[in-house]
Amino acid sequence: MANTDDDRRPKYQRIADSLREAIQSGEYGPGDRLPGENDLMATYGVARMTARQALSVLRDEGVAEARKGAGVFVRAFRPLRRRGIQRLSQERWGNGRSIWSADIEDRALEVDQVTVSEEVAPDRIGAVLDLAEDETVCVRRRRFVLDGKPVLLSTSYLPASVVAGSAITQEDTGPGGTYARLAELGYKPAHFREEIRSRMPSKDEAAQLGMSAGTPVVLVCRTAFTDEGRPVEINEMTLDAASYILEYDFDA
Amino acid sequence: MANTDDDRRPKYQRIADSLREAIQSGEYGPGDRLPGENDLMATYGVARMTARQALSVLRDEGVAEARKGAGVFVRAFRPLRRRGIQRLSQERWGNGRSIWSADIEDRALEVDQVTVSEEVAPDRIGAVLDLAEDETVCVRRRRFVLDGKPVLLSTSYLPASVVAGSAITQEDTGPGGTYARLAELGYKPAHFREEIRSRMPSKDEAAQLGMSAGTPVVLVCRTAFTDEGRPVEINEMTLDAASYILEYDFDA
Repeated sequence: MANTDDDRRPKYQRIADSLREAIQSGEYGPGDRLPGENDLMATYGVARMTARQALSVLRDEGVAEARKGAGVFVRAFRPLRRRGIQRLSQERWGNGRSIWSADIEDRALEVDQVTVSEEVAPDRIGAVLDLAEDETVCVRRRRFVLDGKPVLLSTSYLPASVVAGSAITQEDTGPGGTYARLAELGYKPAHFREEIRSRMPSKDEAAQLGMSAGTPVVLVCRTAFTDEGRPVEINEMTLDAASYILEYDFDA
Repeated sequence: MANTDDDRRPKYQRIADSLREAIQSGEYGPGDRLPGENDLMATYGVARMTARQALSVLRDEGVAEARKGAGVFVRAFRPLRRRGIQRLSQERWGNGRSIWSADIEDRALEVDQVTVSEEVAPDRIGAVLDLAEDETVCVRRRRFVLDGKPVLLSTSYLPASVVAGSAITQEDTGPGGTYARLAELGYKPAHFREEIRSRMPSKDEAAQLGMSAGTPVVLVCRTAFTDEGRPVEINEMTLDAASYILEYDFDA
């Protein structure tokens, strides 16, 4: 779209726009150092404060990140591709693999901060799982760390009455994970619903995911249903948006 | 998760956390006015600056928004539910409805800022559509406005050689829209890929979508393929994250 208002942009915005264009065109690649305040002052003939504002626009957008004492760098973006539909196909968890292995290619994924507990279901969970008041759920919390960087927080809720005594109540759910165990219990997941939102992280989430400023989280809420339509698991996930591309493939 | 470090949180953070809990529990609903600086000073015995910081935490997270002269309010969140798979089913566009009508229920959706032009394909588009260098695309830009609020920017790219002379090159594509016309031209969309990312908006995007501070955009890039696997359209969409829930339903 033609923009004849260009000259009305404040100076710091014009500098930020031209740096952004240089990044989008590939002149500065992921991880490259951007011109510093002194460079921008010399190139554009502006005051230090203007140069600083220009760089802070790119930081606020999440396009660039500051490294203490080293300068401002183009955010290195090598996201995971999370294929929503293929990764949950039964052939995958049906023969003992983790659904996560679909996403990580050759990269090192670790799971940490695993906790398993039995808790009264939060209202929103009880409503979807159709539980009686005060009925308990098995709650599985964990964090996924890729190449040393935390990328995802996950909390699963399953009706305690369904999973009692199974490996789902243990830290290690065994080959094929929770979905393979649910199948053995007679509650094979046949249908999934994923709901996706995005917002800024809370301070806690930003700390747990080691996130840079100016980066949102993506929330994925997955509900697994048996072929009779009974919901048997809700998994609430919080993803560092800079670490993921979500992909869904489907027919018309 | 037990948090024994609670007492180490700064005061403004403790106040923000307790307001957030009150919002999440429903004590303050969407659109409700939150306690003001004076209320927080009295309730918590803190200085004005601390009260102000507490409210700004919630604004930065996008949980609350300030209205000039009126106070700080819980962000009214009545998002659109965008059902990624059902909305693109052939029965829908196959009989003359717009795919968008699947999402809007009883609400008033307007399309504005429609432009149609023929342009040399940007590199990333030419690469996916498998075009020769300098080959042109038909570019359809528009903005979607729901209940008076802009919610989505959309830019579609189609090979000019495919759509030349059809209603796709007009502002009004006719009943069933672009996909119905592609079918008539012998390029019926049979398969879709949607890729989803999230980041903070640029200043331009925030202005075009009338977004509040602390709100990210969701990017959806959809590619439509014929049943021979030929890509015939790329649609790059920019969504106000506070206005949408994306939903995908699929079988194991």
